[in-house]
Amino acid sequence: MTTMTRFDFSGKRVVITQPDDFMGPTLSRLFADSGATVIADRRSLRERGQGAALIEAAGHVDILIAQLGIPAPSTPAIDVGDDEWREAFATMVDPLQELTRAVLPQMIARKAGKILLMGSASALRGMKRASTYSAARGAQLAYIQAVGVEMAPHRVQVNAIAQNLVDNPMYFPPEVQAMPAFQERIRREMPLGRLVSAEEDARFAAYLCSDAADCFVGQIFPVCGGWVPR
Amino acid sequence: MTTMTRFDFSGKRVVITQPDDFMGPTLSRLFADSGATVIADRRSLRERGQGAALIEAAGHVDILIAQLGIPAPSTPAIDVGDDEWREAFATMVDPLQELTRAVLPQMIARKAGKILLMGSASALRGMKRASTYSAARGAQLAYIQAVGVEMAPHRVQVNAIAQNLVDNPMYFPPEVQAMPAFQERIRREMPLGRLVSAEEDARFAAYLCSDAADCFVGQIFPVCGGWVPR
Amino acid sequence: MTTMTRFDFSGKRVVITQPDDFMGPTLSRLFADSGATVIADRRSLRERGQGAALIEAAGHVDILIAQLGIPAPSTPAIDVGDDEWREAFATMVDPLQELTRAVLPQMIARKAGKILLMGSASALRGMKRASTYSAARGAQLAYIQAVGVEMAPHRVQVNAIAQNLVDNPMYFPPEVQAMPAFQERIRREMPLGRLVSAEEDARFAAYLCSDAADCFVGQIFPVCGGWVPR
Amino acid sequence: MTTMTRFDFSGKRVVITQPDDFMGPTLSRLFADSGATVIADRRSLRERGQGAALIEAAGHVDILIAQLGIPAPSTPAIDVGDDEWREAFATMVDPLQELTRAVLPQMIARKAGKILLMGSASALRGMKRASTYSAARGAQLAYIQAVGVEMAPHRVQVNAIAQNLVDNPMYFPPEVQAMPAFQERIRREMPLGRLVSAEEDARFAAYLCSDAADCFVGQIFPVCGGWVPR
Repeated sequence: MTTMTRFDFSGKRVVITQPDDFMGPTLSRLFADSGATVIADRRSLRERGQGAALIEAAGHVDILIAQLGIPAPSTPAIDVGDDEWREAFATMVDPLQELTRAVLPQMIARKAGKILLMGSASALRGMKRASTYSAARGAQLAYIQAVGVEMAPHRVQVNAIAQNLVDNPMYFPPEVQAMPAFQERIRREMPLGRLVSAEEDARFAAYLCSDAADCFVGQIFPVCGGWVPR
Repeated sequence: MTTMTRFDFSGKRVVITQPDDFMGPTLSRLFADSGATVIADRRSLRERGQGAALIEAAGHVDILIAQLGIPAPSTPAIDVGDDEWREAFATMVDPLQELTRAVLPQMIARKAGKILLMGSASALRGMKRASTYSAARGAQLAYIQAVGVEMAPHRVQVNAIAQNLVDNPMYFPPEVQAMPAFQERIRREMPLGRLVSAEEDARFAAYLCSDAADCFVGQIFPVCGGWVPR
Repeated sequence: MTTMTRFDFSGKRVVITQPDDFMGPTLSRLFADSGATVIADRRSLRERGQGAALIEAAGHVDILIAQLGIPAPSTPAIDVGDDEWREAFATMVDPLQELTRAVLPQMIARKAGKILLMGSASALRGMKRASTYSAARGAQLAYIQAVGVEMAPHRVQVNAIAQNLVDNPMYFPPEVQAMPAFQERIRREMPLGRLVSAEEDARFAAYLCSDAADCFVGQIFPVCGGWVPR
Repeated sequence: MTTMTRFDFSGKRVVITQPDDFMGPTLSRLFADSGATVIADRRSLRERGQGAALIEAAGHVDILIAQLGIPAPSTPAIDVGDDEWREAFATMVDPLQELTRAVLPQMIARKAGKILLMGSASALRGMKRASTYSAARGAQLAYIQAVGVEMAPHRVQVNAIAQNLVDNPMYFPPEVQAMPAFQERIRREMPLGRLVSAEEDARFAAYLCSDAADCFVGQIFPVCGGWVPR
């Protein structure tokens, strides 16, 4: 006997960026199953202008789920090259600003709308050999906090999930999960003792995109099984 | 056109303490409407032993929602008397430990269960003339963090909402809400610009008590419209 | 060639509670070497009234360093008895309020004074089998935050160190430090990779008690080698 | 009768970037007065390669104080142009990475060294019309956290001050401080009730750059008079 949470996003148009990566497939399925029209635009946002073009192509957007991830480089800080650095910001940070700037006017005009960043807890706790990735992820979270506060009076809610150790094939492919060292790390670092499931993460995202969550503005929600305390 | 979140707690037995106070009425209605059996035990938990008695009387408990609140005293720190101090801990802190200790064994045995504290953000940000209340609320949150981590391997999830500026008749009666100074304070201190509604708070609590939230352990969730950043 | 920080507390009267325990010996030596008059009152603060008596006996107090620690019980949450619970609050929480209440009036009158709590990071990150201790430590930190904000306009600064994994014979006696499992835990859990030394902790405390730190009010400073991120 | 903190940085070579801006003058004076050789390189770090060139020109660097600030734009989020965005990251974020990467090898080789970022609390709490600035500041803090953890085993300490509402002519020129609305904001938003003085901020920076602070790794220290709680 399990408890259920069901969402009804009927009539809502939801943009999910990088729909094939990261949490994209699970998010797309959940929103579609909940009645939403899911706009899965696959274009690369790497070049300036593509974020605006995506929003223009999408038309009416009730909910923007900004997934902007790349596999985390594991370069020691002293070896991080200009290309790695620039690439991380060009793919994770700049498009967030461009998408947000492009989609906000219609949301402000309607006095309704939600932007949810699928961000990373790596910005909340230091990790070795993750300086590039953490920095870009930190820019994302701080941006969301600021825009969230600014948009609150317009009744547009902008928030972020800061996740880590969530089961998804991009960051934790099966061959990694099978490694004893990885399993040991999970037991040691995560009070939860297992990866957060993609479904758990996606459902929480859906909750934060529902009207029930209108009270959250510019807030960062860790989803990482206790890897960061708060 | 609004999005909906619906919960199904059919077959679940939910204890809500202080059911007539604070968020009690809204929580009770929401859980009952969602199919739960709500056990609204009105006994005072002020005396040691009453928490254990409440749990024993309740029998099978799937979900414990620990509401343990008193109106916040506004005594300057230098004037806080022994009675005020003792009373705050006797009503807000000691019963939390007693209820938790009493209900955990059955949850551990079933490898399932949820405890949610309706805590306070006053423990996360200093406020004047709130030393007693904040201290007791801080004990609650730290207790939940610790027990949450300890219970995670047992598949029992223990978490807390840290709320402030949520609409409820106990802390913000209509006559307070009507005061211009209060309205000004809301505009100034809350990015949200309005009180969080009781319904928003209760629905988030329900989400955290549902199976979808099995991934959260020992986590503190601010619900205060941005009054604390994280 | 090392850099030096030197303090001059000449003419200052500093109360250090539990002067023989915890960081007491190192703090006492450092303050005495820096010219302070150290008032090392050894009375037990376990009984109500003793905190006020201590302050009365001390007379003029410029700086109060509240050390209120007991060895952390490691009882599972379900086995914590009433005695353990009550004892933790009676020794760590109640005396903090009593000492603070007793010493503040003279500091307010002089528009000068500092209170520093030697608190614990266990209130900032959940740990197994530490529910009692964490709860009491959480009450301390939240109390300091609130009183710190309230006292700021009086030019009395009230702050806390939230420490963990600091070398001291009370929590980490030599026989514990010699255990391979303990050393492994240090390497794993502490980015610093070694215990914080008593001297480092005491010097930071001294800094926070100096006039240079007048700008900090109600703030919590983790001192734990990265065990909590912030 | 005031307490004193004195630093001795004799024989230490300290690089302070943007030495004429922000906290630069106060920091330069304090370190020079404390015996350090202050290397005040005024070159712009705006172009890639200049950070490495600065470090090469500096030679032996014991302490790097990374000040990388620009006046915060106050553009609404929907009006932030590509130039503002790029400029903020090019002046505040990219040079931090370049300077750090350039200076670390000599510090690692010596098993000694300190990097302190003079960062901003705007990354820790959302503010309206500050999205660009906050994002860049967030990247800085997350970068420091990550590098700090990575460098800890090398005995190189990398930390950050996250400041706001510190008296300095760049962010709070006299004409701003004279405005009643600004004074009212200080009273309302800062528990401290006044700007943090440049001297207080600089002394804390000096403390964090001294050997006494070897225990801090990848840590963020708010210096903002209580504007953020922790």
